[in-house]
Amino acid sequence: MYEKLTGLIAAPFTAFNSDKSVNLDIIPQFAEVLIKQNVSGAYILGTTGEGVSCSIAERKAIMSAWSKAAAGKLKLIAHVGALALPEVKELARHAVKENYFATSVVPPTYFRPGTPKVMARYLAEVAAYAPELPFYYYHTMLSRLDMSAAAILEAVEAMGGIPNLAGVKFNHHDLFDYQCARGVAGGKYDIVFGVDEFFAGALELGAEGFIGSTYNYSAHLYHAVWQAWKNNDKEIVRKNMEKICLGVKLMLKYGGLPCGKALMFLQGLDLGGVRLPLVDLTTADKKELMQLASCLNE
Amino acid sequence: MYEKLTGLIAAPFTAFNSDKSVNLDIIPQFAEVLIKQNVSGAYILGTTGEGVSCSIAERKAIMSAWSKAAAGKLKLIAHVGALALPEVKELARHAVKENYFATSVVPPTYFRPGTPKVMARYLAEVAAYAPELPFYYYHTMLSRLDMSAAAILEAVEAMGGIPNLAGVKFNHHDLFDYQCARGVAGGKYDIVFGVDEFFAGALELGAEGFIGSTYNYSAHLYHAVWQAWKNNDKEIVRKNMEKICLGVKLMLKYGGLPCGKALMFLQGLDLGGVRLPLVDLTTADKKELMQLASCLNE
Amino acid sequence: MYEKLTGLIAAPFTAFNSDKSVNLDIIPQFAEVLIKQNVSGAYILGTTGEGVSCSIAERKAIMSAWSKAAAGKLKLIAHVGALALPEVKELARHAVKENYFATSVVPPTYFRPGTPKVMARYLAEVAAYAPELPFYYYHTMLSRLDMSAAAILEAVEAMGGIPNLAGVKFNHHDLFDYQCARGVAGGKYDIVFGVDEFFAGALELGAEGFIGSTYNYSAHLYHAVWQAWKNNDKEIVRKNMEKICLGVKLMLKYGGLPCGKALMFLQGLDLGGVRLPLVDLTTADKKELMQLASCLNE
Amino acid sequence: MYEKLTGLIAAPFTAFNSDKSVNLDIIPQFAEVLIKQNVSGAYILGTTGEGVSCSIAERKAIMSAWSKAAAGKLKLIAHVGALALPEVKELARHAVKENYFATSVVPPTYFRPGTPKVMARYLAEVAAYAPELPFYYYHTMLSRLDMSAAAILEAVEAMGGIPNLAGVKFNHHDLFDYQCARGVAGGKYDIVFGVDEFFAGALELGAEGFIGSTYNYSAHLYHAVWQAWKNNDKEIVRKNMEKICLGVKLMLKYGGLPCGKALMFLQGLDLGGVRLPLVDLTTADKKELMQLASCLNE
Repeated sequence: MYEKLTGLIAAPFTAFNSDKSVNLDIIPQFAEVLIKQNVSGAYILGTTGEGVSCSIAERKAIMSAWSKAAAGKLKLIAHVGALALPEVKELARHAVKENYFATSVVPPTYFRPGTPKVMARYLAEVAAYAPELPFYYYHTMLSRLDMSAAAILEAVEAMGGIPNLAGVKFNHHDLFDYQCARGVAGGKYDIVFGVDEFFAGALELGAEGFIGSTYNYSAHLYHAVWQAWKNNDKEIVRKNMEKICLGVKLMLKYGGLPCGKALMFLQGLDLGGVRLPLVDLTTADKKELMQLASCLNE
Repeated sequence: MYEKLTGLIAAPFTAFNSDKSVNLDIIPQFAEVLIKQNVSGAYILGTTGEGVSCSIAERKAIMSAWSKAAAGKLKLIAHVGALALPEVKELARHAVKENYFATSVVPPTYFRPGTPKVMARYLAEVAAYAPELPFYYYHTMLSRLDMSAAAILEAVEAMGGIPNLAGVKFNHHDLFDYQCARGVAGGKYDIVFGVDEFFAGALELGAEGFIGSTYNYSAHLYHAVWQAWKNNDKEIVRKNMEKICLGVKLMLKYGGLPCGKALMFLQGLDLGGVRLPLVDLTTADKKELMQLASCLNE
Repeated sequence: MYEKLTGLIAAPFTAFNSDKSVNLDIIPQFAEVLIKQNVSGAYILGTTGEGVSCSIAERKAIMSAWSKAAAGKLKLIAHVGALALPEVKELARHAVKENYFATSVVPPTYFRPGTPKVMARYLAEVAAYAPELPFYYYHTMLSRLDMSAAAILEAVEAMGGIPNLAGVKFNHHDLFDYQCARGVAGGKYDIVFGVDEFFAGALELGAEGFIGSTYNYSAHLYHAVWQAWKNNDKEIVRKNMEKICLGVKLMLKYGGLPCGKALMFLQGLDLGGVRLPLVDLTTADKKELMQLASCLNE
Repeated sequence: MYEKLTGLIAAPFTAFNSDKSVNLDIIPQFAEVLIKQNVSGAYILGTTGEGVSCSIAERKAIMSAWSKAAAGKLKLIAHVGALALPEVKELARHAVKENYFATSVVPPTYFRPGTPKVMARYLAEVAAYAPELPFYYYHTMLSRLDMSAAAILEAVEAMGGIPNLAGVKFNHHDLFDYQCARGVAGGKYDIVFGVDEFFAGALELGAEGFIGSTYNYSAHLYHAVWQAWKNNDKEIVRKNMEKICLGVKLMLKYGGLPCGKALMFLQGLDLGGVRLPLVDLTTADKKELMQLASCLNE
């Protein structure tokens, strides 16, 4: 059993230049921004990092740059999911080479594992590409699966287990499944929570590790909730959750990823736009957004 | 603005005789069981009460029986939703006549309101059938809608409001929407939470009123969570939530409603089976279930 | 085995007065319009007839009026589906009393049969309410089921059959399932096709009986396609299918049922509006629609 | 406007060795099998070809091998869709270099175009990677989109068009949308039909070009249907469609792609297994399948 992840782990954005090529140069500053905000790790090239929108060569370069920039001050998890297994393997080996803490994979979204049993077989395959490292299955509503994380973990257990399966990055609204997944096999799996706007609720249900995109720029709000929750100060919890929800409402209004990326201005970083099929904010929307977002930093 | 609902409100089952006719006789005992467990109200003939599986005449008889049995000791809310508006009206008028505290409607599931704006018009129509009483929109995942409760409330506001719309029975996993709905129009709406197995999480996010089926037989677990949450005793919260989840796992395994109904044996009531398209438990399953469930009462 | 339905069977609209009460008076004229257009039957109070939006008393009155108006010149099928079994029974018995040719049921849409096996049990129950008459299961995409008609019929067969199950009203895009359903049990079931805009395609795949809403006002287009199909005149098939698709495009643009109802003006009938949650056309839309629709009658 | 595709275009499988590496050696034989069956072209590395399950290097090698093997006797279309735009570009350029007839792209399935307008922008981007060649948008139910092909084409037109957009590979049950898409912009787009088991229906609705996986091994059945359809011999159409449906039933029973691949034994080719998340047939299933499939070749 691996040590469980704790604290806030940011899922960094990938910066693009104006021609939509990858901007590697900004990564050292980005790492500093995270360290300054007291986040404990970074989940590289997942949904927020537009990992699947980058080529394998680009992903490897980004992984290397983060490894160097983190300089041991951030626990780095590499999302290495891809539609083609040879590419997952190439990325997983690169994660080992670059001294990542763990690998993680979102299941493929064109052909898709149709049952927990097939998912278990798929996870066994991709976890084994980096057997030296803990592996996290990435459970997200974007996968549009009809199976619970708990059912998948039960299927893994029924199959005899996966040696380096550490746990689940749990990005799903179903907090019942979250609680069930925590209970599988006597609590052996690390279920890291990933729906930022449910934060206080997840804390009360036992969450201790969190991965999310808004920790890139609003970690202070979550630290404040966490402290107030420990102190039983329900008023402060509520007040900060309201701010957190305001931020997420902006994301819904302007488009999650483009908006989140723009909000990095709050931390002094210009990350550029997004790649299709995501759509860049218009200049007018960006301006409007920044005005509405100013209160998040108070 | 109406006073908000607080505490645990049970959603009683409807008892059937062996020929699947309605068993009205057990209702007084059922009411006692609820009062004894310190629940503050009862939501009559919703999902748990198989309301839409009963004829209008049956529903009126059940409503009357509950009104008499509650004898002012339970706040009664009548679910009066039906596919045909004349039937909604007939039930709403009956709720007024029988001195119900409020009416509530789930939107129709064959033809369906396709936008928040149409939903707002629909709710205005059905709320007006009992203008003397507060009205609660029933927001449930069973409706398979692609719109949030907050968006519906915003559409109601944009339309100029609905005089007697008190709030929402919120049976949905989306706790972000829950928080947003609470914030619409300066917090004027009462958003009553309905996913029992998220209980502690919803508490931490501000919930004060709850409607659910498991309060029929396991209210003590929720009272224990609530007290521990107030006392900042996170260990007791966790321990009781585990028991609550165990109960829900049984429901998933054996079928939610038939299982829940069977669990009323824990409170000494034999409610009989369910109506098609729900399916009765086999005798073997029922026996197995009761053994597994025994720990819930400890 | 029952004789199979053939030809075009219209699914009449239900007319409402300006106060949204049912207009029974127009039914004799409506029946004449259908007979004049050479349709062979009428499917009463299904989706097009807003059956589930009418109360049981209203449905019985409408059924009686149609029975009288048809005067043996139209084969009448009564849709008797409802969420509550006692109501299905009451309607089915009324169909027998009013000398309907068959009954038909869409499965319930709140609680829903979750497997073909449960569906088979449900259909056995409701078919038995009118054992004197052939029964048609109504398979429609509006039910949002994850099971094929063929799988349901196979489950019925596995259960030992349903004595009076004649076949399926097949309102689904899946023409593979259509072909499979036709093949179950050696072709014993009558699979009546219900997606008007696929008409020529279904003909070529073997369809001989059709139930649809656009036969209320555009039967001549379908008769023309049918004749041309027999004569191998592919150009005329194509030309008339284009007109048929134009009509359906109008329905998508203005809202299926309100638009279809308005198009009955083409046959000289004013049927009034629709009931919520469907939404009436605005006067401007209605006017625009009638101009665009004029070509359908050429 | 480009010349429209006609006839049967097979979508070849990709053969794997027992270690799941790509088997390029079998491609010349595969091409011969297609030519012998009188198919007019091949759609390389789409769904059937497990394109997205292969690395970019593998895809380029497969594309080159097919180009050589086809030797001008098959019209080759390269599916070049990938989640990352730089990879789409690399594949599109390779298609030009290898003298493909056209490129084609399925939209990304993790991040997804959310509206017809965004889809139009996405298609404009990827079509422009190979401006020398006609481009086909691949519209498939596997994309789980809530927009019709006709709406996408209308959005393209509204945007001013895409110079080399030739048409749509239409793999969807919605034959109304198929007819509408054919009508957009005066019929300028080539809508190639891709649901093999709807074949006769699509013919009657005007289809002249078809892309499908079952043409790899059962082209003779489709040629027979086509000829009979021309001759107005409805009995032969029906009889062959029954055989076609039998083949598809086998695919549903044993898993579409693994089963289809196994059926190439009917043409004398051993293509090996599939890549995860697809699952190989067991030896027992494969044997059973081959027995059941023998009648397809009669």
